[in-house]
Amino acid sequence: MMRGMLVNCVAYEEGRKLGDIAVEDISDYVSRPGCFVWVALFDPTEAELALMAEEFGLHELAVEDARKGNQAPKIEEYGDTLFCVMRTVEVGPPPDDELLEGQMAVFVGKNYILSVRQKTQHGFVAVRARTEHEPELLKRGSGYVLYALMDAVVDRYFPVLDGLETKLENLEVAMFKRTPSRQSVEAFYSLKQDMMTLRHAVAPLAEVTSKLFGGRVPLVCVGLQEYYRDVFDHLMRLSAEIESMREMLQTAISVSLTLISITESEITKKLAAWGALITVPTLIAGVYGMNFHNIPELDWLFGYAYAIALMFGIDVVLWLRFRKAGWV
Amino acid sequence: MMRGMLVNCVAYEEGRKLGDIAVEDISDYVSRPGCFVWVALFDPTEAELALMAEEFGLHELAVEDARKGNQAPKIEEYGDTLFCVMRTVEVGPPPDDELLEGQMAVFVGKNYILSVRQKTQHGFVAVRARTEHEPELLKRGSGYVLYALMDAVVDRYFPVLDGLETKLENLEVAMFKRTPSRQSVEAFYSLKQDMMTLRHAVAPLAEVTSKLFGGRVPLVCVGLQEYYRDVFDHLMRLSAEIESMREMLQTAISVSLTLISITESEITKKLAAWGALITVPTLIAGVYGMNFHNIPELDWLFGYAYAIALMFGIDVVLWLRFRKAGWV
Amino acid sequence: MMRGMLVNCVAYEEGRKLGDIAVEDISDYVSRPGCFVWVALFDPTEAELALMAEEFGLHELAVEDARKGNQAPKIEEYGDTLFCVMRTVEVGPPPDDELLEGQMAVFVGKNYILSVRQKTQHGFVAVRARTEHEPELLKRGSGYVLYALMDAVVDRYFPVLDGLETKLENLEVAMFKRTPSRQSVEAFYSLKQDMMTLRHAVAPLAEVTSKLFGGRVPLVCVGLQEYYRDVFDHLMRLSAEIESMREMLQTAISVSLTLISITESEITKKLAAWGALITVPTLIAGVYGMNFHNIPELDWLFGYAYAIALMFGIDVVLWLRFRKAGWV
Amino acid sequence: MMRGMLVNCVAYEEGRKLGDIAVEDISDYVSRPGCFVWVALFDPTEAELALMAEEFGLHELAVEDARKGNQAPKIEEYGDTLFCVMRTVEVGPPPDDELLEGQMAVFVGKNYILSVRQKTQHGFVAVRARTEHEPELLKRGSGYVLYALMDAVVDRYFPVLDGLETKLENLEVAMFKRTPSRQSVEAFYSLKQDMMTLRHAVAPLAEVTSKLFGGRVPLVCVGLQEYYRDVFDHLMRLSAEIESMREMLQTAISVSLTLISITESEITKKLAAWGALITVPTLIAGVYGMNFHNIPELDWLFGYAYAIALMFGIDVVLWLRFRKAGWV
Amino acid sequence: MMRGMLVNCVAYEEGRKLGDIAVEDISDYVSRPGCFVWVALFDPTEAELALMAEEFGLHELAVEDARKGNQAPKIEEYGDTLFCVMRTVEVGPPPDDELLEGQMAVFVGKNYILSVRQKTQHGFVAVRARTEHEPELLKRGSGYVLYALMDAVVDRYFPVLDGLETKLENLEVAMFKRTPSRQSVEAFYSLKQDMMTLRHAVAPLAEVTSKLFGGRVPLVCVGLQEYYRDVFDHLMRLSAEIESMREMLQTAISVSLTLISITESEITKKLAAWGALITVPTLIAGVYGMNFHNIPELDWLFGYAYAIALMFGIDVVLWLRFRKAGWV
Repeated sequence: MMRGMLVNCVAYEEGRKLGDIAVEDISDYVSRPGCFVWVALFDPTEAELALMAEEFGLHELAVEDARKGNQAPKIEEYGDTLFCVMRTVEVGPPPDDELLEGQMAVFVGKNYILSVRQKTQHGFVAVRARTEHEPELLKRGSGYVLYALMDAVVDRYFPVLDGLETKLENLEVAMFKRTPSRQSVEAFYSLKQDMMTLRHAVAPLAEVTSKLFGGRVPLVCVGLQEYYRDVFDHLMRLSAEIESMREMLQTAISVSLTLISITESEITKKLAAWGALITVPTLIAGVYGMNFHNIPELDWLFGYAYAIALMFGIDVVLWLRFRKAGWV
Repeated sequence: MMRGMLVNCVAYEEGRKLGDIAVEDISDYVSRPGCFVWVALFDPTEAELALMAEEFGLHELAVEDARKGNQAPKIEEYGDTLFCVMRTVEVGPPPDDELLEGQMAVFVGKNYILSVRQKTQHGFVAVRARTEHEPELLKRGSGYVLYALMDAVVDRYFPVLDGLETKLENLEVAMFKRTPSRQSVEAFYSLKQDMMTLRHAVAPLAEVTSKLFGGRVPLVCVGLQEYYRDVFDHLMRLSAEIESMREMLQTAISVSLTLISITESEITKKLAAWGALITVPTLIAGVYGMNFHNIPELDWLFGYAYAIALMFGIDVVLWLRFRKAGWV
Repeated sequence: MMRGMLVNCVAYEEGRKLGDIAVEDISDYVSRPGCFVWVALFDPTEAELALMAEEFGLHELAVEDARKGNQAPKIEEYGDTLFCVMRTVEVGPPPDDELLEGQMAVFVGKNYILSVRQKTQHGFVAVRARTEHEPELLKRGSGYVLYALMDAVVDRYFPVLDGLETKLENLEVAMFKRTPSRQSVEAFYSLKQDMMTLRHAVAPLAEVTSKLFGGRVPLVCVGLQEYYRDVFDHLMRLSAEIESMREMLQTAISVSLTLISITESEITKKLAAWGALITVPTLIAGVYGMNFHNIPELDWLFGYAYAIALMFGIDVVLWLRFRKAGWV
Repeated sequence: MMRGMLVNCVAYEEGRKLGDIAVEDISDYVSRPGCFVWVALFDPTEAELALMAEEFGLHELAVEDARKGNQAPKIEEYGDTLFCVMRTVEVGPPPDDELLEGQMAVFVGKNYILSVRQKTQHGFVAVRARTEHEPELLKRGSGYVLYALMDAVVDRYFPVLDGLETKLENLEVAMFKRTPSRQSVEAFYSLKQDMMTLRHAVAPLAEVTSKLFGGRVPLVCVGLQEYYRDVFDHLMRLSAEIESMREMLQTAISVSLTLISITESEITKKLAAWGALITVPTLIAGVYGMNFHNIPELDWLFGYAYAIALMFGIDVVLWLRFRKAGWV
Repeated sequence: MMRGMLVNCVAYEEGRKLGDIAVEDISDYVSRPGCFVWVALFDPTEAELALMAEEFGLHELAVEDARKGNQAPKIEEYGDTLFCVMRTVEVGPPPDDELLEGQMAVFVGKNYILSVRQKTQHGFVAVRARTEHEPELLKRGSGYVLYALMDAVVDRYFPVLDGLETKLENLEVAMFKRTPSRQSVEAFYSLKQDMMTLRHAVAPLAEVTSKLFGGRVPLVCVGLQEYYRDVFDHLMRLSAEIESMREMLQTAISVSLTLISITESEITKKLAAWGALITVPTLIAGVYGMNFHNIPELDWLFGYAYAIALMFGIDVVLWLRFRKAGWV
């Protein structure tokens, strides 16, 4: 897909598709009562955006935000129109499974929708197809299309979150199975980074979405409060689960440190035990290496065997005691 | 119990039971003034839910939430009706005592109650039985039944919390008795996970319950504020105790690390002491193993005994000093 | 004191004591204008409470809370009457100084006070005595008595907090004097538990007390706002000091870990120094224990003395260097 | 300065000083229109305070708070009058530089100011002097004097905070220069304690000061909102810097632990290196101390020299490798 | 640039520049309807500021704040005029890249702007130039100029934040590549300090900026809400990213400690392995250094070779096992 693409530009009347229209005709259709225009752009050029701004009469600050592609989620009113920015989050190719961030900006007027998608892999053509099959819903106008797009963006957060949760569970199991390693610590850290990415998409969007169904509601959203509240509920559930994961991850990192300290303790004990098993016979060898003239054992017929037996005997006793204490 | 069960479908009039009714007759009874229908489903099939949605005229988004069974707790108004989702938390079979989550969704209309239970072991038949014995309370209508169901769900959180608290207390006692082990750290972690599960059931429910007795109250709850406030009080108490446990658990984990460090220190000292008791005699043995021609002790009659005595003597002195210092 | 005791049941008129009255006469006195009844129960039986509920016309949910004795602090309005639950905190017998929790529930009507004390050692007879000596204050009615009881409960938190602060100070001094031990860590932990107990008594009470003097005030509290604000101020001061202690305790625990690590470091250095003082002479002994034919020193007249001197000399030099470096 | 001192008792008219007046005449001057009385007490006796309470008609609860001297900062309205409590914080004598807490309670009536200073070293005579030189400001009455006193108290927090910040900076520099020691950890802890003391003076005062310029303002403060907002700004700045210091201190303590662990690691490596430099020659000595009959080296003319050279050679090689690896 | 500079003093009419004017003429132009004066000062002397205060009629408290140069960000209304303080943050010269703080205070009247810049390197001449090229925007008056200045200050935070993020990323990569060192810990700490500096500029400014577009808006800002909301959005984005960095940094520091502990563990194991490779042959050498008369091996022809082979053989076996276990 090349940069600067007009994905779609369609006019509707009474919930039914009239057909694809030329960009220059947009303003004509928009001004026709009962008519509704839905345009979708993907990574648009500045010129394309400028043209749209002119056709729809968009505010310069909103156009600027749509162009930049790195805005935080927000919903703003410019007079009667609504400007909504969402972050898309997609899982990149294995083995890194890096999270890729994109942006979905939506301009919502009384009878038009302009969506500007930036840096996302997956499009939202399915949303248009599903919506076109439900003319009675499409008849509700731009507010319903905004809901359908938000719902689609938010629904895509769930598999991402599930992926992160699966990663966390695997790390937890691994953590208690073997001592945490450099790799597992790095995995925790990278999981935390992914979680922060997802949180930045979800948390601010939840906050601003709440303005679409409680108290004074923007004009285009009137009568659709139950739908926006549903999107909000999904966002709250995501938020709660992210917060929960975040706390567990925090705990997992400090538990890792504790487990490493326990392992360190165990290694120390193990080493000490094996050290004793070597140094004690060395002492005995040292004793019988002394040059005293009257060391009776040296003259024994089986003195050497006795010494070796003594070494082994003491080591066996020590080893049994160490094993009982769980040191070896 | 097989999937897709209609637990109960009963009509009441003036607080008294009229009798079980057929599902198809629900809409008739609901439209009869003074009549009240209470239906309970357990793990319903999609078809059953669709039938109920039609009979009671439920909103598609609410039905969707009731069907999915993994929603966060919430209370939402759809026109005059109320939709309430609660999480049930049950202790699984030993030895794991894993916490099992279920869902209880309740649709509350002016003169009907529809409860949809998902993945829970224990039913709420007792609630119905108790309520039927108090016609004067049942006369208050659907709002009172909602209270009775909420009260039952919330009351079941207390033994779960008590179980977690007992576990924490046992872990605390164990922590100070012997040095924290890999197992105890894992137990802390799994306790934290259980606590998070319980918290996710309790905290959001507390938040939404507060809307049932203060300020503008949904129609079906009018006149029952003191009852809902009581449920809220219970939820607040649970919340406070969970928060408290959470903080103690956090502290317990960092205290564990400290205790492990102390143990590590003690082991180091112990090892050093025993190391000295071995290496010092080894040095003496080394000295008398030197090949100098004029080492007078080597010619002594009891030179060997003297050397052994020297080794033992020094070790006894060292051992006494180490013991005084608490190193052995 | 046996379970189920009626501590006191007195009628007042115009701020003056009429005398003890029989429980059955309560409802008569309560209905007499200008009259005021003050009843105090201690660990009451269910029957006693039921009798009181009947005489005073109390709400079943409030009576249930008073009976149970493990409620969180709260202040609730039931129509014109007020129901207040407070936690009492007392220091148990030495050497444990365990904190003992009790409950003080107060029903406040227009012209009656019913206090229900559970599991507390110390009574509130002094409050009654002091109040009876100030008829002009007692004339203000049940609101003033509630204030007097709250003030008494809250005043008893201060010595408990002072006790915890003294413990913390002692632990702090000890922590920097000697390396934190298992015992001191356990003491920190148990101090934290006590602090949480106190916090659970104080923090929710502060929150609910604020409703007695700002904005719309319950009827029985009208004209006494300055008194309730005073109680609130005390609770806020307690809260602030508890929060502060909590933060210092948190810091103290992590500082403990740091101090233990420092000690561990010092021990390691000390051991290494003493290890060197043993192994270096051992090496020298080893060298002169070699069996080469031409080791000139072996033939020296004072070869042995020279070797011993060499060992000592090197050890003295090492010891001086280690001491300079602070390792021994 | 002896306990129970009347620092000053002066009457003003139209912003100009009338002169010192006797305590008994206070109520006369206060009731004279256009007149204004400013009294300053230092560590007053109960009798003095009781006299003032009578002359000015003060509320018993406020007088009690002024007497006790350990109240939290607060601003309370008693009818038309205002009661303000502030904490003074002063740096004690070196070398401890301990922070000393005092209290400044101010009673503000329509035409009087009564300040009660407790346990503070430095007085507020300069405030009076400066104010008397600006009759046009003094004419604004008691609200302006309250501002002047608050401003003076708050201004004295800044050098205290600067002192703590300097201490923190010194500790930070020291922390990265040499490994944190027991002393530096103790210094961090004591700095934290000082910070908490200052925070307890600043944070609650900021909170209550905000009530003097926004929304409904107490009568005596009307027309002076910009001045109180200025005091509030200073308190907010102090608060922000204290919070910042607190976070850095927290980080510094955990960084300390990390640095100690790094040092521990380095020491371990250093010891291991030196240990190897001793034990390897010991092994060689051991080999040539074996009693085999056919060890050719033993018969070499320069066998001994060769052995010593071998020991040194291996040690030099090891030492160079260890130095390259940064272990020695 | 010398201290106390008047950067610019220009009068505008109908969005067009009239020309530079003398300071004494300011008050004349300000009082002329349709006229607009824009003055920029850099590190002004007290005299200059006093002159401006007189010409524009500024409030003494605001002038004091502008003079001091160390205020926290704030926006205050003084009657119809607005006083805005912002912190500038600039990156100092390499290699330290220290963050340098400055202050930008702006007085905004109905038809004047006075900006007072303190301790900043880069001026805001470009803002004036750009604004002068858009007469239709400049016509909107002082509110638009305030927006342009705020936008310029806020835009300069982004490269600073990017710099900090790059530093954090480099530290993260380094952390997992090699074990965290003293230097990397110091870098984390200094990064945290920089982050706090930036946060102190951003967070309070975001808070106060929200008052310029929601609810009651100051007179000079009316009609420009969308612009101020844009500035606010940028500040919120900065805030969110700073918070995120702060949390990652916190995690990175505790992960560092964990990594160090892992390294410590690995070193311990490595040392133990090499220790065994030395002490085991030493034991063998000790055994054959014993002086028993009947040690058959001593008489073997290749006894010495056998002993050496035994030593090597055992070491090879041990080494292979250690390598398999990942200890060497």
